[in-house]
Amino acid sequence: MRYRKIPDETVRRLPVYLRGALHLSGRGIESTSSKELAELLGVEPWQIRKDFSYFGDFGTPGVGYNLTNLIKHVNKILRLDTGHKAALVGVGNLGSALLAFPGFGTYGFEIVAAFDNDRRKIGRRRAGLLIEDVALLDSLRVRAVHLGIVTVPESASQDVAEALVQAGVKGLLNFSPRHIAVPRGVKVITIDIAMDLARLPYYIRAG
Amino acid sequence: MRYRKIPDETVRRLPVYLRGALHLSGRGIESTSSKELAELLGVEPWQIRKDFSYFGDFGTPGVGYNLTNLIKHVNKILRLDTGHKAALVGVGNLGSALLAFPGFGTYGFEIVAAFDNDRRKIGRRRAGLLIEDVALLDSLRVRAVHLGIVTVPESASQDVAEALVQAGVKGLLNFSPRHIAVPRGVKVITIDIAMDLARLPYYIRAG
Repeated sequence: MRYRKIPDETVRRLPVYLRGALHLSGRGIESTSSKELAELLGVEPWQIRKDFSYFGDFGTPGVGYNLTNLIKHVNKILRLDTGHKAALVGVGNLGSALLAFPGFGTYGFEIVAAFDNDRRKIGRRRAGLLIEDVALLDSLRVRAVHLGIVTVPESASQDVAEALVQAGVKGLLNFSPRHIAVPRGVKVITIDIAMDLARLPYYIRAG
Repeated sequence: MRYRKIPDETVRRLPVYLRGALHLSGRGIESTSSKELAELLGVEPWQIRKDFSYFGDFGTPGVGYNLTNLIKHVNKILRLDTGHKAALVGVGNLGSALLAFPGFGTYGFEIVAAFDNDRRKIGRRRAGLLIEDVALLDSLRVRAVHLGIVTVPESASQDVAEALVQAGVKGLLNFSPRHIAVPRGVKVITIDIAMDLARLPYYIRAG
């Protein structure tokens, strides 16, 4: 099945719906409605219906969405159904936290390699993974790793991104606040934690 | 000036626009257009114009947006103009990374307190901040701290959130993949890094 081009905003929300569907399914529930899913996730039911309409409605009127079906579809749309290997570069505090983070498996991700340029770290293990020399990043090509997680200091992020792209990486998760320039065909998602925090005061009434 | 209720999606995008405006302004540029801002940020110009229309258009036709004005408005809408004190609970790898993170200052945030329950950490300093005993979280009330950053293990996140709310915290930034239940009037923003990564494969063509 081929899907139409989907707006970025919808692509951003699909993992949220997937998380909700996995949560309900994990509790033994078989089907859900856009209303129930919306309440669980704190979004609007019409938004869910609209987002799902981009790739053919897979709900049944009066019954709702079969969760097994829903999870299968969303995984397929997001291309999570095949599993993805990721490499992490920069085993500082943030990098170490991510290596130990249990949540990646939920979406079929596996961090299979960790790199650093610090001689004292190279050769050691962190969360079960051997820390490799960042100078040998190119080995990722033969290991079929297509995702990179960049947790190096801001000043090094562009160079590391370029080395990852050189090694065949097609998608980057960037934790540095600096913009990373990449060639066409490579996608960067930047996680800016301060920006997420910046949404918070809007919702807070002085008290 | 009072603003109308703004959709969550717009509130989510405003800090992104703010970051773009701060970037341009920092380079000595005085005004921008929705087209220029959109190109910089990788969004759609109509989206920017629509989002800004919620609180009165502050652009000038043919001239665009004065950046000083734009930054002032968005800061005011997001209530970032007054500055905000935050407390962080859980000084593990992720917590330590956040304490050292330089990006919070951009939006007027200051982490003024750090807590842990580990006797070996309490009394030590991390990124210049004294690590305090989590049992004494209640002192936040007299220190007028309204934001909390929760970087404890998943199993402790609900208890910590409740203690923070008890101490007068009104907004929580939650890094645990678990849902946190809070009373009405308290806002939680959950950062799910795996979910951000889950958007990436959609954009990657097999290569």
